[in-house]
Parts: sequence; structure tokens; C-alpha cells
Amino acid sequence: MKLLRVGAPGEERPAVRTEDGRLLDLSSVASDIDGAFLASGGVDRARAAVEAGGLPELDTGDTGDTGDLRVGAPVARPGKVVCVGLNYRDHAAETGAAIPPRPVVFMKDPGTVVGPYDEVLIPRGSVRTDWEVELGVVIGRRARYLEGPEEAAEVIAGYVISHDVSEREFQLEYSSQWDLGKSCETFNPMGPWLVTADEAGDPQNLGLRLDVNGVKRQHGHTRDMIFPVHEIVAYLSRYMVLEPGDVINTGTPAGVALGLPGTPYLRPGDTVELEIDGLGSQRQTFGQA
Amino acid sequence: MKLLRVGAPGEERPAVRTEDGRLLDLSSVASDIDGAFLASGGVDRARAAVEAGGLPELDTGDTGDTGDLRVGAPVARPGKVVCVGLNYRDHAAETGAAIPPRPVVFMKDPGTVVGPYDEVLIPRGSVRTDWEVELGVVIGRRARYLEGPEEAAEVIAGYVISHDVSEREFQLEYSSQWDLGKSCETFNPMGPWLVTADEAGDPQNLGLRLDVNGVKRQHGHTRDMIFPVHEIVAYLSRYMVLEPGDVINTGTPAGVALGLPGTPYLRPGDTVELEIDGLGSQRQTFGQA
Repeated sequence: MKLLRVGAPGEERPAVRTEDGRLLDLSSVASDIDGAFLASGGVDRARAAVEAGGLPELDTGDTGDTGDLRVGAPVARPGKVVCVGLNYRDHAAETGAAIPPRPVVFMKDPGTVVGPYDEVLIPRGSVRTDWEVELGVVIGRRARYLEGPEEAAEVIAGYVISHDVSEREFQLEYSSQWDLGKSCETFNPMGPWLVTADEAGDPQNLGLRLDVNGVKRQHGHTRDMIFPVHEIVAYLSRYMVLEPGDVINTGTPAGVALGLPGTPYLRPGDTVELEIDGLGSQRQTFGQA
Repeated sequence: MKLLRVGAPGEERPAVRTEDGRLLDLSSVASDIDGAFLASGGVDRARAAVEAGGLPELDTGDTGDTGDLRVGAPVARPGKVVCVGLNYRDHAAETGAAIPPRPVVFMKDPGTVVGPYDEVLIPRGSVRTDWEVELGVVIGRRARYLEGPEEAAEVIAGYVISHDVSEREFQLEYSSQWDLGKSCETFNPMGPWLVTADEAGDPQNLGLRLDVNGVKRQHGHTRDMIFPVHEIVAYLSRYMVLEPGDVINTGTPAGVALGLPGTPYLRPGDTVELEIDGLGSQRQTFGQA
């Protein structure tokens, strides 16, 4: 099942996208798609409501798909956004980093989460704003001290495209700690859909692609992760409590501006398109903060 | 004014502590002390209600002060907890780090926030759980791209004692990024009170103290900060949006276990007491996760 949230920022309503591309209003089932929804069996309630029929269809205008409706992030305000850095061998190589023996864990301000088609702002003073397409994991059940990957699979609600926008000067040169360059306003477009784990299938069998102004820049595959998704979730649960609605960004493959000849960082007016198999696509135009 | 939240975890009600130590129930004024309360002039409403009289007094039992009432963190679930590392010269020296030219910024999982007298859990597998008394800044108004320290003063709601509990092996040895060792369950006791900025006075004129099992371990003063509070807030606002209810931990002075002879890290059963001038005191007994 594909869950999403549509409407103006802060006024999104929950919806389901049907297999034939219609959007059904879930407002009668849930007030929002958030940690409380996921923790209380909301996905099952939504599925039952779809199967029962009768959910009103949202008017998507003439253009089809979501039409004139703004799409928000598919999970309302995560409690935290945890990130794993350098999790693809080719990306570690392009940044000049060694293959890490353990996941490199940092965090983004969860306030950075915006919709998949929203404008992203290049921070004032930034000259090194960079892109990173990532598979995002949405937690569905509280998790602490999981035994291993098998248990991890059971706490995952589903998957999203997550754009881990990064400012390399703030991240890498202002101090040893990366969070500053990961937490700028609008720096985490998410969605369009939360695709439930059953529908997304094997998380290590997904292609990821990112274009900038129509030029292919990233073309990776989750089979090349150093630490696979279920291992990451189990690992994190030994050091922090994962709560429903939390999001984990699982790292980016090679092809970011930092690693390209000429380091073609983003400028106002640039357009970035992201795609992950089965999870839909994003498109952002960059503006100036 | 001193604001606090009393009651069982997740069921706290807002209260005011009077100058003579009584607790007045603020439930008729606000449902909680959180970002929405701070952003909507809640502090002014609370002050007016206290001055008007008639707020019911909470029964604190026979033992005085908060008596049998559990005290929660004085701000409900911050949107983010931002930390500045190595912000006291003596602490940078004891950890063997250079004086940083810019604030070292990292984050804790905001889910780590607990009450000032709650049990803190030593993580499974931990042998280097450490203490850090810190001045915590609570944001009262949305802040982005502040011009400087003068504007920063206007967005601060008040101050709290914040215990930035840290696991040094997870923080310093598992990867280059510190967040993993800062985000363990219960790792951020906060409170007992949110002391409004007008009452707390100059944030650079506060003594901080921390005892472990009755032995004085930290005895610092905020005048020794490398980056003072208002500069930190202005700095952060250039890289992330600060929202009402967000908390900033401003660093710890010397005297942590990491820097002491014999590195006397915390063990189950240890008791830690923290105090900052005008902000009250905390006391936690450590348990095993």
C-alpha cells in the first residue's frame, strides 16, 4: 500500500494511492500519518477501509496523478531522522573515506523534512550545497535492543525516497561533526509515498537514481550497501530507542557533487529529480534562502 | 518565573513554582509546556494567572518541595536537542582536543529527554557512561538567520539544567560522529524548572556543579564558555531553523570521567547530583538497561 499526505504545509490530510493511480481520502480513518497512526495499527485500518470501499476520491485536477494537490512528506514530523553515512562502497571511495567498520551514525534536524516537490533553499553563504538520494526507512513499532535482522524487519512500517541534502562546507569544514551541514531549512524532501514493507519487497533490491538539470548523476543499487537495512535497524536499536514515525536515511551511492570533476554544486534554479524502484519520484527546484 | 511539569511520564501537567516553593496547577491555563505554549505567549498567560491569584495549589505531600509528585522535564518532547561540544576551555583540554575555532555542533535524539530525578539507564554493553552538567537553552520563538547576539536574546524562553549523559566508547570509538554515544535511552535528564530568561539573568554568570556519589566532580562557571549563549543561538540560526521548544545544550566544563585519573565511569547504583545557580538541582540514580 502507498500512503501519502496531501494539502498545504501543516494542513495535510492522509490518503492512499490506489494501484490505478487514484487518491482516496483517509481522513475518516485517521487524522494524520504519524507515529501514533503507525503504532496503533493504522496501516491495517487503512487497508481494511480501502478493501471495504467507499473512501471518497480526492480531486486531482486535470493533470492526473496528484494534479494540483501539493504532496507533503508521507510521515508527519518524525521524532528523529537518523542517518548512516558512507554506506555505499563507491560513495565512500569518491569522498576519499575508508570503508567504515561500523555504521557512521549522525542526525538531521527532523524539522528539515518537507514534501517531495517542495522548493529546497540553498542556505545563505552556501557555495557547496549537494544532493544525496537515499532509501529512507520508516519505523512502525517501538524498538530497543533488537536481537538481530529478523526482529528488525518486524519494526519497519515501510520505505520512502529521502533526499539527504547536504552543505559540504558546513558539514566537513566547520567542525568534525556533520549535523550542521545536514540540518539546514528544507534539507530533507521525503516521499511522495510511504510504501509499506510488504509492497516494497526486499530493501536490498532497489535501484536509486538522481538527475540534476536532466543529467544523470547518481545511479546506484541498494545491494551495494555496506550495512544492509535490517542490520542498520538492529544496530541502531542497541544505542537508541527507535519510535514509530522515526526515519532512518540509509546512505547514498556515488555521484554526489563533492565527488564529481569540477564539484558542480547546486545553484538557485537548478532542478533535481530522484527516483527509487517502486517508491515513486521526487522533483525539487532549488531556491535561495 | 519557574515553570515545571509534574505527574507520571506522558501524563505531566504544567505548574508554576512560587517564590515560597508552592506548586500552582497551570492546567486551566495550558494543556502542556511545549513549543506551542511558548510560541503562543504561554509564559505571559501563566504570569498573568499567577498574579490574578486563584490557581489551585498542588498537593506536594509531607516532604515539601515536589514531595511525592514526580517531576518531568520542564518542556515536553523538544523538536530537537542541539549540542555544542568542547565549549569550555578546561574541558577541551582534559579531553585532549584543541580549542575549536567554531562551535562543534551535534545532536541528541530528543526522545532521550527525561525528568530530573528519573533513573538513567547505562546501556547494555557500556563500560564508559559519563556525566556532563550543562546549561540548557529553551527556544521560545522561531529563529532563522538572526543578525547577532542581541536578536538571539529575544528568542530565548529560558534556561534549564541539562544532563548530557554520554557513552564515550559509542561516541568516540565507534565512528567519527558523536551522536550515537549521546542518544541512548534516558540520556538527557532535564529540569526541574524552566526558569524564564528574565529571572535567570545573565547566562554567562552561572556556576555549575556536579557530584558523583557525594564527590564533587565538576565545578565550572558559564563565564568560561568559549562561545557564549547568545552567540551560539545566533550562530545556529544561520544553519538551521530554531523552533519554540527546541533545546540547546551549551557544553560542559572540566571534570568528566573521561578526563579524570582512573576514568571513573558510572556504574549501576551510582548517584549523580547536578546544580546550576538559580536553576535548581537534579539527582539521578543510574541503573542497567
